[in-house]
This record gives sequence, structure tokens and C-alpha cells, in this order.
Amino acid sequence: MIVLFTDFGLEGPYTGQIKAVLHQAAPFVPVIDLFADAPTCNARAAAYLLAAYAVWFPAATVLLAVVDPGVGGPRASLAVAADGRWYVGPDNGIFELVIRRAAAVQAWEIAWRPERLSSSFHGRDLFAPVAARLARGEPPPGVPRDPVAARHPDWPDDLAEIVYVDHYGNAITGLRTALLSEEARLTTMGRTIGRARTFSDVPVGTAFWYENSNGLAEIAINQGRADRELGLAVGSPVAIAT
Amino acid sequence: MIVLFTDFGLEGPYTGQIKAVLHQAAPFVPVIDLFADAPTCNARAAAYLLAAYAVWFPAATVLLAVVDPGVGGPRASLAVAADGRWYVGPDNGIFELVIRRAAAVQAWEIAWRPERLSSSFHGRDLFAPVAARLARGEPPPGVPRDPVAARHPDWPDDLAEIVYVDHYGNAITGLRTALLSEEARLTTMGRTIGRARTFSDVPVGTAFWYENSNGLAEIAINQGRADRELGLAVGSPVAIAT
Amino acid sequence: MIVLFTDFGLEGPYTGQIKAVLHQAAPFVPVIDLFADAPTCNARAAAYLLAAYAVWFPAATVLLAVVDPGVGGPRASLAVAADGRWYVGPDNGIFELVIRRAAAVQAWEIAWRPERLSSSFHGRDLFAPVAARLARGEPPPGVPRDPVAARHPDWPDDLAEIVYVDHYGNAITGLRTALLSEEARLTTMGRTIGRARTFSDVPVGTAFWYENSNGLAEIAINQGRADRELGLAVGSPVAIAT
Repeated sequence: MIVLFTDFGLEGPYTGQIKAVLHQAAPFVPVIDLFADAPTCNARAAAYLLAAYAVWFPAATVLLAVVDPGVGGPRASLAVAADGRWYVGPDNGIFELVIRRAAAVQAWEIAWRPERLSSSFHGRDLFAPVAARLARGEPPPGVPRDPVAARHPDWPDDLAEIVYVDHYGNAITGLRTALLSEEARLTTMGRTIGRARTFSDVPVGTAFWYENSNGLAEIAINQGRADRELGLAVGSPVAIAT
Repeated sequence: MIVLFTDFGLEGPYTGQIKAVLHQAAPFVPVIDLFADAPTCNARAAAYLLAAYAVWFPAATVLLAVVDPGVGGPRASLAVAADGRWYVGPDNGIFELVIRRAAAVQAWEIAWRPERLSSSFHGRDLFAPVAARLARGEPPPGVPRDPVAARHPDWPDDLAEIVYVDHYGNAITGLRTALLSEEARLTTMGRTIGRARTFSDVPVGTAFWYENSNGLAEIAINQGRADRELGLAVGSPVAIAT
Repeated sequence: MIVLFTDFGLEGPYTGQIKAVLHQAAPFVPVIDLFADAPTCNARAAAYLLAAYAVWFPAATVLLAVVDPGVGGPRASLAVAADGRWYVGPDNGIFELVIRRAAAVQAWEIAWRPERLSSSFHGRDLFAPVAARLARGEPPPGVPRDPVAARHPDWPDDLAEIVYVDHYGNAITGLRTALLSEEARLTTMGRTIGRARTFSDVPVGTAFWYENSNGLAEIAINQGRADRELGLAVGSPVAIAT
């Protein structure tokens, strides 16, 4: 399975062209759209979102992760093998949390270049062909590299910020719920918010946080939009107020 | 064929994770996105939209219908067989019109539970695996139940409200055109609107209603946006002014 | 491969119903979403976008191109074979630039009609079944027609207008970069903008134009939104200021 995690948007030609490349180079591999609206040009927030959602997928999944404001510039390209899954994308920190949390990890700097490489769409021209190779069982076309060297040591293990706002207006943080106590409350935009198990456990209109279906702390309002009512967007800071 | 009818949005991780489950559990069954933007948390409006669009699909289609504000609460889960098609989703009225209009209908309360059931994403954890089983030809994993008992007797046979606004700003009502006379006019937001066959039959900028390609009465403006120009949204009331 | 180029939007039922038709009529042919947000009801702008993006696809690709404000009216339906690719859609100029730029081109007026043809959704009822036939290797179900007769001689060879605004706010023009000098500057909305190779070659916040990954001149701002900051939308005029 090849899983797309990008900030390309579902509309427009980008995701479609990537799928055309994948269908030609790995015809029988299903391609899944996970996020086409990962935090735009924000590799740091994207890194926490990717790390939380990637581990839900089975072994041998190839995650094509492209949030790449430095495309066409000097940043390198990476293939990473972490706990049985493959990752392909730019070397800009997007794999930082995947690498840091993995029990077993290897990395390669991608040396292969296509015949024709556009300056703005490496997702289509470089990363998709590499993802197709990995999905076909071929080795990464590059040179091994110390995955520790990829680390951004200043990035925290969990990010106390909103990293994604979904279709309903729910605001996902970069905090893993497993690290928070049952009584932990979250403070954001001047409001302190208690924990609940799910939407129907609180009255309509009430703000709460809960463990979302991929293990992140998520701020929501039962039958309301947390983003609008609390003023939350990607990057809004959150604090733990136990 | 498995058809997705949800309010999850196409972006974000929800539809992608459901497709990942379906691809693993029913690998050779095509999955079609019908609506990812069904009326948010509005099972009643969704019920009229689903009933009108489901019957267009061939026999043996499995419709995975998830508009589920009560997820994680006490509401039951249903599998319904109606006129040769399968339906899977929450027991909150979303299948009310499908059941009421079917010539032959059976229902099951889903008793099966996955090993790990999140409190907020039964679409992925419960309904998708059940849909995959039905698509593989297996029986519903549950106990038969009187489909009549599912009915909301206070819901009308046709809904005189806007149930969907499309990409062009056209506003779809819950009224089946087959029940309306050729001369019927619709009144909404203080405007009375006549019928036309299609867009090009009225001058540019003119509001009209017509039988849409799935048999519902739809309010539109030739080369304009009916939602903005007439002030229409999901839930706006419509009256028949013959 | 069947490639969808429409103004239907990805959400709502339109693209899904077309895919359901294609899956049934040409089960093993991959279907790629290229644009679901081509310029709404604007066949002229769409024609330049289609011509630039279609040539990226391999020979034998079938492009289903539906921007069709005249649906249900007297406009004819076309199948076009141009430089080894197939095109199916309305005869409203959307294939004008494909035809004009092709080295080898043939056209057919589609004579076939389905048993049930809705008045507003020929994409599903007429064009998709024809696209599936072509993808299966069958001949176009229609009568040959002089492709030159389809031409709109008043449309320019390149369109000095914005024809698409993408997810990032980048504004794509209808100008092929191959025809512009390295020093060419573009003027739009009172601003004159120089050329760069890619985003990371200019400071954050700087407006520039560049050759996009499909050969069109595209106006962008490094880590900003050109549409909002420069006031650009589909149809905004652009001038070449060498």
C-alpha cells in the first residue's frame, strides 16, 4: 500500500499526477489518500501528525510524505525504513518524529534522479518513482546515512500546538494522549478544557478534549466547531494544566 | 462495489483510513466516493439524500453511510438489505427513507465488535469491516431486527428543505420530482421559482428548479450560484406553490 | 488510463457517479482525478489548462473533459484523437487548443445516446460510457468531422490570463513558458513581476513567476498566497512586459 501524506490539496493536478506516476510504476499497489491537507509548508507540525498516523498502517506500507517548501533548493531527499514501514520525502524534518520514536530505523539519502526533474514538483518527478520502487520491493536508490544525523534536537518529543484542524472544526494537537493523565486539562486561547471519552459524553455545545482515533489529544465541541468557537488554527499553542 | 456516503470531508485522514481498511479486507472491490460532504451531523437531511442517490447504484452495491453525531454513545449499529443493496451505518435514522421506500427490506443490529474500537471513529473500526464482509458475500454479523421498528414516523415521505448544496451553489431539496406537477413552483426565502428542463433553457442569471439527474427537485441559477443569490443552505425550508 | 478533467468539484456526487460508471464499463482501467476544479463554466480558460496538462500523460490515455455550462442544450458532443491521446467532452471549445497544437488530429461527433440521458449530467450518462469504450479499444461511436471546423479562431494561441489558482494560492497563466524569454517580466494587477527558477530562489514573501511543472508561466509568492496578496483570480489579465 502506498499512502499519500502531502499539503498539495486534493483538488488541482498534483495528487492526480502523483497517482498517475504510481499507477504506471507500481500498477497493482493500492494508493490511499491519508492527508492532502497536511500543515501547508510546515514540516515541523507535519512531522508530529505523520508520526501519529503512520503507525496505524500495516508493515510494508510506503508513506509518501511531501510538505516541501524548500523544493528545488539544496535540501536532500530521504528514504527511511522505520519499524517495518517505508517513508519517502524531503529532508526537512518531516521524518524527525518517525525516526525518534522508531525502535528500528535506517535512512538513505536518495541519489537517483529522473531524466526530467522539475524545479517545483519533486513529489511527482522524484519521490513518487522512488515510492513505487520501494512498493515493488526494490532497495532505496541512495546511500545509507545515519538517521540520528537527521534529527532536530530542539523539537520536543510531543508538540503542544494545534497541528491539524479537521472537516468538523476539531483541532488535533501534537500531544500523545498516552502521556497525559485522565485528569489532565488543556489550556488554549485563554480557555481550560477538561477531558471526555467522546462527543456524546458532553452536552451539545460543550468544549472538551479526548483521545482521538489515532492517539492524539484533540479539542472538540459536541456538535460545534472548536476552530471557530475557540479561535484555533494550526500553530495555536496549547498548555497542559493538570 | 462499496460506496461511501459520509460527512467526513474528503480531506483529512478519515476517508483514507476507511479505504485502507476496505482495501485490506476486500482487496478487489472498487470503492467509490459518493458524498464525503453529506449534511454534517444531520442524519435526517442525509436520509433523504441517501435514499435518492443509493437507488442509482446496481444491485449488490454496499453503501457505507456514516453521518454519526452519536458515535461512541448508546445508539446501535445497523446493516440493512433493501431492494438488493446493502447499507451499513449507525441506527440514527439515516436509513429511514431507504427502509420506507423499499419493496423488500431486512435489517440486522450489528453485534460484532472489533478488537479495538475507538470511541469516535466507528466508520473505520466497525462499519468499514462490516461493509467489507458484506462485499465479500458474507452474512451480516448481527441479529435480525424488525426494520419497521427503525422508523421515525414523524419524518415526512419527502423533505421540503434543502438537503445539499453542491460545488456550483445548486441547492438540492428532499422532494422527489416524480411527485410534483410540471407546473409546480417552489417558494423559498420569499422567492417563487418556476420549473425548467435544464440550465440552458433559461436566460443567464435566472433562478429555476429542475429535476436533477437523481430525481430530486433542485434549485439553480443559470451560470450563477443559487446558494448565495437566494440565501440557501442545508435546512432552508422550501414550499410547493402550485 | 482514464483521466478526469472537470469543474464538478471533488465533493458531492458527480465525480463518484462518473467513477461508478467507468468501473462498471471498463473495470480494469485506472481512473485518475486530474482537475475536479477546472475553471467553473469557463470552457475557454479550461481549454488552455487542459492542453498544457494533457500532454504530460502517456499515449492511449483517455481524457474525459467536462466543463459544460451548455449541458442539455443544442451543443454537440465530441471525441477527439490528438497525438495518440483520446479526448471526450462537449463541443464548446474545451478541445480548441488541444486540436490546434496537435501534429495529428481526428474528431468525431458522438452520435450514440444512452437509454436514459439526464438533461444536466452528460458527464455521467454520455461522456463516461464513451470514455470507457475508448479505453477498452473500441472506436468512437460517432461520425467523423473536420477538426478544423471546431476551431474558435478568435481565441489566441496562448492566453494572457489566470486560468487556475491552486491550493497554495499560486496563479497559473495560460502562457507557455517556452515562448517567453528568460528576462520576460509579467505585469498583473498593477504589479510587474520577475522570473525565478523556483520558490527557494527568492526571499520569503517575494512575488515571482516561474515555469511550472507542466510548462505554464505561474505567479507565486515564496511561502505566501499570490491570489490574496496580488488580488488574482481565474480571468485576471496578465501582460508580458519585456
